[in-house]
Amino acid sequence: MWMETKREVEEASRSRGSFSRRVLNALLSCTGDMKHLDECMQDKSFVLQLAVWALRGVARVILANNPLSGTLILAALYWASPWQGLLGTLGVLVSTLTAVIMGQDSAEVSGGLHGFNGVLVSLLMGVFSSAGDWYWWLLLPVCFGSATCIFLFSGLSSVLDRWDLPVAVFPFNIVIFLYLLCTSQDNPYFPHHPAMPPGALEPNGTTLNAIEVIRGIPLGVGQIFACGALGPSLLILGAVLLYSPLLAAHAVLGSAIGTLAGLSMAVRHGSLYSGLSGFNGALGCMAVGGLFFTFSWRTHLFAIASAFLSAYADIALCNLLGTVELPACSWAATLVVTLMLLQTSSLAAYRIPIGQVMAPEHNLRSRSQWAAGNTAERESTDV
Amino acid sequence: MWMETKREVEEASRSRGSFSRRVLNALLSCTGDMKHLDECMQDKSFVLQLAVWALRGVARVILANNPLSGTLILAALYWASPWQGLLGTLGVLVSTLTAVIMGQDSAEVSGGLHGFNGVLVSLLMGVFSSAGDWYWWLLLPVCFGSATCIFLFSGLSSVLDRWDLPVAVFPFNIVIFLYLLCTSQDNPYFPHHPAMPPGALEPNGTTLNAIEVIRGIPLGVGQIFACGALGPSLLILGAVLLYSPLLAAHAVLGSAIGTLAGLSMAVRHGSLYSGLSGFNGALGCMAVGGLFFTFSWRTHLFAIASAFLSAYADIALCNLLGTVELPACSWAATLVVTLMLLQTSSLAAYRIPIGQVMAPEHNLRSRSQWAAGNTAERESTDV
Amino acid sequence: MWMETKREVEEASRSRGSFSRRVLNALLSCTGDMKHLDECMQDKSFVLQLAVWALRGVARVILANNPLSGTLILAALYWASPWQGLLGTLGVLVSTLTAVIMGQDSAEVSGGLHGFNGVLVSLLMGVFSSAGDWYWWLLLPVCFGSATCIFLFSGLSSVLDRWDLPVAVFPFNIVIFLYLLCTSQDNPYFPHHPAMPPGALEPNGTTLNAIEVIRGIPLGVGQIFACGALGPSLLILGAVLLYSPLLAAHAVLGSAIGTLAGLSMAVRHGSLYSGLSGFNGALGCMAVGGLFFTFSWRTHLFAIASAFLSAYADIALCNLLGTVELPACSWAATLVVTLMLLQTSSLAAYRIPIGQVMAPEHNLRSRSQWAAGNTAERESTDV
Repeated sequence: MWMETKREVEEASRSRGSFSRRVLNALLSCTGDMKHLDECMQDKSFVLQLAVWALRGVARVILANNPLSGTLILAALYWASPWQGLLGTLGVLVSTLTAVIMGQDSAEVSGGLHGFNGVLVSLLMGVFSSAGDWYWWLLLPVCFGSATCIFLFSGLSSVLDRWDLPVAVFPFNIVIFLYLLCTSQDNPYFPHHPAMPPGALEPNGTTLNAIEVIRGIPLGVGQIFACGALGPSLLILGAVLLYSPLLAAHAVLGSAIGTLAGLSMAVRHGSLYSGLSGFNGALGCMAVGGLFFTFSWRTHLFAIASAFLSAYADIALCNLLGTVELPACSWAATLVVTLMLLQTSSLAAYRIPIGQVMAPEHNLRSRSQWAAGNTAERESTDV
Repeated sequence: MWMETKREVEEASRSRGSFSRRVLNALLSCTGDMKHLDECMQDKSFVLQLAVWALRGVARVILANNPLSGTLILAALYWASPWQGLLGTLGVLVSTLTAVIMGQDSAEVSGGLHGFNGVLVSLLMGVFSSAGDWYWWLLLPVCFGSATCIFLFSGLSSVLDRWDLPVAVFPFNIVIFLYLLCTSQDNPYFPHHPAMPPGALEPNGTTLNAIEVIRGIPLGVGQIFACGALGPSLLILGAVLLYSPLLAAHAVLGSAIGTLAGLSMAVRHGSLYSGLSGFNGALGCMAVGGLFFTFSWRTHLFAIASAFLSAYADIALCNLLGTVELPACSWAATLVVTLMLLQTSSLAAYRIPIGQVMAPEHNLRSRSQWAAGNTAERESTDV
Repeated sequence: MWMETKREVEEASRSRGSFSRRVLNALLSCTGDMKHLDECMQDKSFVLQLAVWALRGVARVILANNPLSGTLILAALYWASPWQGLLGTLGVLVSTLTAVIMGQDSAEVSGGLHGFNGVLVSLLMGVFSSAGDWYWWLLLPVCFGSATCIFLFSGLSSVLDRWDLPVAVFPFNIVIFLYLLCTSQDNPYFPHHPAMPPGALEPNGTTLNAIEVIRGIPLGVGQIFACGALGPSLLILGAVLLYSPLLAAHAVLGSAIGTLAGLSMAVRHGSLYSGLSGFNGALGCMAVGGLFFTFSWRTHLFAIASAFLSAYADIALCNLLGTVELPACSWAATLVVTLMLLQTSSLAAYRIPIGQVMAPEHNLRSRSQWAAGNTAERESTDV
């Protein structure tokens, strides 16, 4: 059913007129990329448009491109911590507005591409701040950091475009590093917690709690938004499910693989319980399994490999960056996914050009349509 | 008056023949890029030519391309410390000669592009050496380091040319890192001082001295040459003023912004007083405000943004590199300016192709002439 | 005699039929790249083909491309330590098989390009493991690490191809870093020795032993395979001599230069005695002096410069990475050789396109043939 186009569903519901069809129709129109919404929004007020762009931006963090998913995620963030929710909202608005003011490409802005780095920077600044919630001075670096993301996004895209690579969360990772390095642990204005390397050994005597470890798997999905509570994490997973069930399945699979990798390297138990071991695996698995590559059994295997690589790279980077009290953020997943997108082997045949990336189910359906044109286009971008 | 072409001035002075005009004429011909000097020099001896190339190289450090500015700056260096002046002279000569021997592009050599990294490497080696002045063994690494800059310049230009980016001071930053890492603090042959991170807190009880902070602003311009004395710093600022008043204004503005950024992050007072907080801001501000972009109110705002970014990035890098006892040198400004040159947004419209970069006043004047041809050329370099 | 083509030798031996000629003929056919072997192997079984690919892969570590050299080197590794020999064999087989399964370019696979990173990763994992020999669990990371090299090779080649650069040992250097960072010193499953920075001062009282230092020069060639015994090191040098006497000469020269650089920076005596100071110099010297550039007196001078740069960069990186207990591996030589290949000056005229790199003697001979076509081709790859 999922594979049918919306038009077919519409036609079917019109001809038969059953109530259940109409409900399904309405439900289906809320899944995937919701491109039809963009057309409706064109004559609406700027504030309404900005809200949709911002919600897309929030969802983009977890590789979804759907304003309803964004709404659910934002609700989850406010549920977990109203202060964090506020910071996230401010971050996405500031970075999207900066992009509008700086005259970035309007298609990119309306697709939420200039929002997700701002959200992440704001959320992480909030999480690492040791000044407690509602420390209003924090809004200053949040605004400055979110705006800086646009500069980095624009500059990096010039470089990465040469290889048809997405900018992804490189700007977030760079900005949060600069912020944490600028403000040391005992900074008088913006103090922050140090990051603890996951390789640090536990005091002996503690045994691994299996239930806690399994609980860490859905938490790994929530940790993509630096959210460590179970309820909001499940809501975030639901938001991904709304966008694409395939992506949600890969998120859980990737988080489980990340946890497995953490176990094999004997990381701190806290790292497993909190889901911090899983979130890079989840991102690595989602990006390869369906989003940037057409789903098939081969890409599914590559997605598993990507999840393992992301998870191990994350442990390595955490241990390395822990020596200078920095967190590894999502560097590992970002670098591994970039590496996967650069592959020249059999994986390249499944690669979807960045400009045509949509929900995995849509990719799968339209695969046959663009496959023919793929080689020709690749050559033209390669010149 | 500044905006008139030299030919107009010449004609005017010829027709009216007033003495003041002739003085102004002579004065004006010493400002800007002094391209007319290159024509006069073509039939002169190699030693004289080398001197001009070297002086251009000295001025290039602070983004000026004028042999008279270079002379003034060299005088300032000798004034601050004869030993440092000697090292700088040796550095620029060795690196320029290496470029000649290695058969680098003659236009680049005569433009001083192969000199400025050598000057900086030599000066910084002298500043960090803890063996005191007139330690003659230091001339060995100075020569070797200056020559290495040419290899790095040539190699990096192959990569950066793809995006029409300048090599800037990347070679200097890399070579000085390698030197400081090779020779640890207690090296028996080449001992050096460790770099102190600016985030280190002062012992409490000290209050900030406002006059010292303001004094740090012109010192920030001098710190581009690792010079911490007020007189020579003002002479260096004068040398920039001779090349281009717009550039000099941006240097002071950028240094002030850097000091402001330092205050907002509560860096060590010594860092503010010595001008070390300001020099990255000054470089970031100068490069964007007039040199690589045509001056306008928009680019002026971007120059301010660039100065802030450079200054904060410098604090971050100082704190990071301080953990391994390395100085941040001018990495921050170099990276931020590179980022600014990569922007695809409205800023790109003001971008001057690297091959056509001249004094800001000249850029401003000839803007209309090449603006038409800009798009066509960009496409050809982009292929 | 070396300069004559094999065909001439064959003809000569046929016409005169002397026994000594026939022996020389057979001997000469075992030197160089042994391209004629590939033709013989095409109809052989897969296992035999895989063996040749793997042996080429082993030899590729030291820039030779000859299965007989590979056999000699493998014998040297088993001689030095059977466990290390086993790890190396497993590493090259796993990475070559992964490349076959992933559908990498068959010409690359049969040239051994997908084997050498696997060998190095396996050998270094064995050397750094503190669990002792015959610790079978180590085979797990060896297999996983060797397979990961293929992903990195494929991804990096997409990027580096733009500048016609070889991927070289970048994948090895990255994978071994990730492994060592993942598993800290006191990891319960995969413990490993920490790397010691060479800048650490010796307790005073020890005098440098000249014979040990000279003994360190051939050991430097062995250290390319992490082999610290004199006999196997000389056998490895013999294997290079079989492939190309010019390359072997540069290996010894480079190792001597590396030792000299180590002396000038007063590194730990152990570093000089074990050959660790020399191996980056050897690699840097070999790559520039004959392999990637046609041999001449100019390239010979550049090879010496490259050896010095590699050796000093290695000391710098060892000191830097020693602060986080990581070894510098062959980062220095890899980066310096990449830099040399990017040169635009007179050195570029001697550059051999990556696709046409063969044994130095062969390069020297065919120089005149492709020199004419070089400019045209360069332009086409530059577009």
